[in-house]
Amino acid sequence: MGVGGQNEAAETDTWKSMVRCSANCSPLTPITFLERSAKVYRDRPSLVYGSLNYTWTQTHQRCLKLASALTQLGISKGRVVATLAPNVPAVYELHFAVPMAGAVLCTLNSRHDSAMVSVLLRHSEAKILFVDYQLLPVARGALDLLVNAQVKPPILVLIAESNSSSSTSSAAVDYEYESFLETGHSGFEIRRPGNEWDPISLNYTSGTTSRPKGVVYSHRGAYLNSLATVFLHGMGSMPVYLWTVPMFHCNGWCLTWGVAAMGGTNICLRTAHNVTNMGAAPTVLNMIVNSPVSVQRPLPHKVAIATGGSPPPPQILSKMEELGFDVTHLYGLTETYGPATYCTWQPEWNSLPVAERSRIKSRQGMHHLALEDVDIRDPVTMESVPADAKTIGEIMFRGHTVMSGYLKDLKATEEAFRGGWFHTGDLAVKHPDGYIEVKDRLKDVIISGGENISSVEVETVLFSHPAVLEASVVARPDDHWGQTPCAFVKLKEGYSADAQEIIKFCRDHLPHYMAPKTVIFEDLPKTSTGKVQKFILRKKAEALGSLS
Amino acid sequence: MGVGGQNEAAETDTWKSMVRCSANCSPLTPITFLERSAKVYRDRPSLVYGSLNYTWTQTHQRCLKLASALTQLGISKGRVVATLAPNVPAVYELHFAVPMAGAVLCTLNSRHDSAMVSVLLRHSEAKILFVDYQLLPVARGALDLLVNAQVKPPILVLIAESNSSSSTSSAAVDYEYESFLETGHSGFEIRRPGNEWDPISLNYTSGTTSRPKGVVYSHRGAYLNSLATVFLHGMGSMPVYLWTVPMFHCNGWCLTWGVAAMGGTNICLRTAHNVTNMGAAPTVLNMIVNSPVSVQRPLPHKVAIATGGSPPPPQILSKMEELGFDVTHLYGLTETYGPATYCTWQPEWNSLPVAERSRIKSRQGMHHLALEDVDIRDPVTMESVPADAKTIGEIMFRGHTVMSGYLKDLKATEEAFRGGWFHTGDLAVKHPDGYIEVKDRLKDVIISGGENISSVEVETVLFSHPAVLEASVVARPDDHWGQTPCAFVKLKEGYSADAQEIIKFCRDHLPHYMAPKTVIFEDLPKTSTGKVQKFILRKKAEALGSLS
Repeated sequence: MGVGGQNEAAETDTWKSMVRCSANCSPLTPITFLERSAKVYRDRPSLVYGSLNYTWTQTHQRCLKLASALTQLGISKGRVVATLAPNVPAVYELHFAVPMAGAVLCTLNSRHDSAMVSVLLRHSEAKILFVDYQLLPVARGALDLLVNAQVKPPILVLIAESNSSSSTSSAAVDYEYESFLETGHSGFEIRRPGNEWDPISLNYTSGTTSRPKGVVYSHRGAYLNSLATVFLHGMGSMPVYLWTVPMFHCNGWCLTWGVAAMGGTNICLRTAHNVTNMGAAPTVLNMIVNSPVSVQRPLPHKVAIATGGSPPPPQILSKMEELGFDVTHLYGLTETYGPATYCTWQPEWNSLPVAERSRIKSRQGMHHLALEDVDIRDPVTMESVPADAKTIGEIMFRGHTVMSGYLKDLKATEEAFRGGWFHTGDLAVKHPDGYIEVKDRLKDVIISGGENISSVEVETVLFSHPAVLEASVVARPDDHWGQTPCAFVKLKEGYSADAQEIIKFCRDHLPHYMAPKTVIFEDLPKTSTGKVQKFILRKKAEALGSLS
Repeated sequence: MGVGGQNEAAETDTWKSMVRCSANCSPLTPITFLERSAKVYRDRPSLVYGSLNYTWTQTHQRCLKLASALTQLGISKGRVVATLAPNVPAVYELHFAVPMAGAVLCTLNSRHDSAMVSVLLRHSEAKILFVDYQLLPVARGALDLLVNAQVKPPILVLIAESNSSSSTSSAAVDYEYESFLETGHSGFEIRRPGNEWDPISLNYTSGTTSRPKGVVYSHRGAYLNSLATVFLHGMGSMPVYLWTVPMFHCNGWCLTWGVAAMGGTNICLRTAHNVTNMGAAPTVLNMIVNSPVSVQRPLPHKVAIATGGSPPPPQILSKMEELGFDVTHLYGLTETYGPATYCTWQPEWNSLPVAERSRIKSRQGMHHLALEDVDIRDPVTMESVPADAKTIGEIMFRGHTVMSGYLKDLKATEEAFRGGWFHTGDLAVKHPDGYIEVKDRLKDVIISGGENISSVEVETVLFSHPAVLEASVVARPDDHWGQTPCAFVKLKEGYSADAQEIIKFCRDHLPHYMAPKTVIFEDLPKTSTGKVQKFILRKKAEALGSLS
């Protein structure tokens, strides 16, 4: 029996004077974080974007107006409002205004093309689309596709560049963000969720696979994950958070709401403002550590940086530390509201050599506060693997911050939850200390001559080669071996190495069968969050045909 | 409609693929904090008490055994298990073991006498009483009273001094704690709450009034309050917490569970162990600042100290700051799981003069993360008072960490929740910045010649007199004025002052009618948490008869 049912104990005589009323019982929702910050943090900066500055009082007022304007358009409870925009203030405000209007926020990836946007608008049945002026052509293209398919397109609201008279023609849109917001009134009565399990947002899985699924978050999950994420970022009161993680990605790991909970400041511009916290994929760390010395500047103070999205090679972690960053390694999925585990740092590790520290930190660690458990299990028998750092199994979660389900896909939802655990599709081992370490995505494993090869292990060796800037390994079909490892590599500027040298280096550091048989030098395709799009590389490797 | 009901949106076709199962849905309970710490923090110290040291793995194992032992005694779901003990390891362990057995923990105030203990055991229907060896005579006396009244007494479990062969005769008890624990097995399957609203603990209001009420906390409230309290203490990962706040008081402000959530160390001994956080009533701060210079020692690092229970005079806050403590001022009640507001510190206040800083810090501030709102309202009309720092009203709360109700007292529960807010019985003003400032308990207000006098305001002036160590002001009946202020004062050692001088000092700093007309020099009676017991002083003042 679930948490929503009758109180067993309250039914006995002893506990019958327990009462649930508005004094002690209301649905958990992150809307309350903004309401509290408007009271506690008032005139403190809530958001900075170029020359634009808002206080928490202003952000609260603006969100109320925006929610009011949404309802005036007839948005009713449970309807979807979509965005197509980078990290501009409007997207932050919509994270509160849309739930305040009782609606569900769907933040689309700003790198999608018109075709994908039209597919997702249709799937989500979005009634309104907020679009950044730079992405208006993509949005228009998507709407044209809908019209051609005789689907009613959403209302289009243009987000012009704030505080500037953007030259974008607004003839092709229904409203402009600022004037639309001004049609609302700040006395708006918030349409609070009737139930904390009501959906708050819809996040389509990002493009590492070609078929996005609509992951649904609840008000309860968003509230709890905001707190857990703030904890694992080690954020104190009033943090200054640099928005490098896209807000459209897992609602910015729920930090859109979390920064409000802490009365912090959201920096939506890529310059330093005494930044204390930020987040970035390992690819971004790689860009930082490999940036030319001429553009590197000393940090004014320690900056806490959370990384995740793919396993960060230990070498990159070492270099980040040398540069003065305090890196926390996170792991999670859209289905777990973003980060679900972190490599909780044990103080005694501080005295280890840097290489050892980085090796330890590259592990994905343990589940955060709002999850009940993480485990590595055999996906068939559902048995836990031993904590021997060797036996590979699938990472599974359960807890308060696992998605409600996939939109309009009960089959996929039930498949993901089979056995009462959420199946991540990621393969990992469990170390004797319980910390988990990702070995590969289930679908990224290369099976060569009957042996499983972890693409992550091969990549880690490639990253340790002095000339390698980026590397990604996928399966190439092979008539004899079934599959062989195929490496895509980008070299550092001013360095050179040929395929033979790279292959030899791998053979020196790996079992023979694990070394790539093919090396291709090129730029790697990435998602907007910096993850390598292996499905594209896999297609390329397939196109090469068999090596044998 | 409450959070427990049907999901409105899920009933529409759009959201029908949402699923609730063990992967994403389980009752919130602080039991999971211990389970997680046993995995993440394993061999890190969980608890230190003299020469006794436990790790999180050990604490987890011991709690499982203890829960198992409790169920072997036939403790069934929703039954009450009581303790009568100071901050010893057993009480910490029972905070997890009792809920793990599905039972409800009732921690009795260790200063109660046999008569009060017997009343509370009878009211709570406790089935087991864990008693510290030093309090065995009190417990035995209470049980005798029950037997005399033909009430079945609870099973008695003796907590001997850990790791020492206590000389207490165990002939008079049913079990001894350590051997009782050993009867359980660590493979025990936890009896998780079927519903997160199930009761987890029962806290009788402390003795500032003479009639304690049984305040009931839920698993959900305890989980959320633990996180909120950790936040407002500014605790980072793995804090070292000195247990000065009694665990029997609001479950130690829920930090019994909160320290486990953060993988911290509980220090149950009154000596320094690199302590980073502690809590204490203003009376304890007063003892610290007035301790002889000869026993004062420099702090090895900043110690964060949270204070609450009564309004701390600004003078004491100034002196604590001079000594190197970082004081956070909290306010709350047993009914709000302990701290409910804190004086959130705005960084720009750091540049103010110390007297001004202390005046600001003595305000009770704003509600924490897990509460929806605090307000000052007219208890009759339920209208909010203006934020003018002058108009007095009653402090009211609503949110996730307000009690479930008073045990066996539906009338008092409904009275406390009238109008959908929890009525605190405390009077306060709202400052223009929204921060609240307590002026008095409703029942402590002195009405003299038709004017309301805040006893707190008079006490603040008394504390500013150089000779005054402690002061408390209550009403003395008066045939002419109705009531007049009567001050009970304790002087500092080596200082002298007579009643006339004290009265003159007050007249110089207060409106004439607010100055005490009576001053009595004596030690003030206090609760175990350091609150002055005004009901005792009021009786003394009443016994004096009319002044006019």
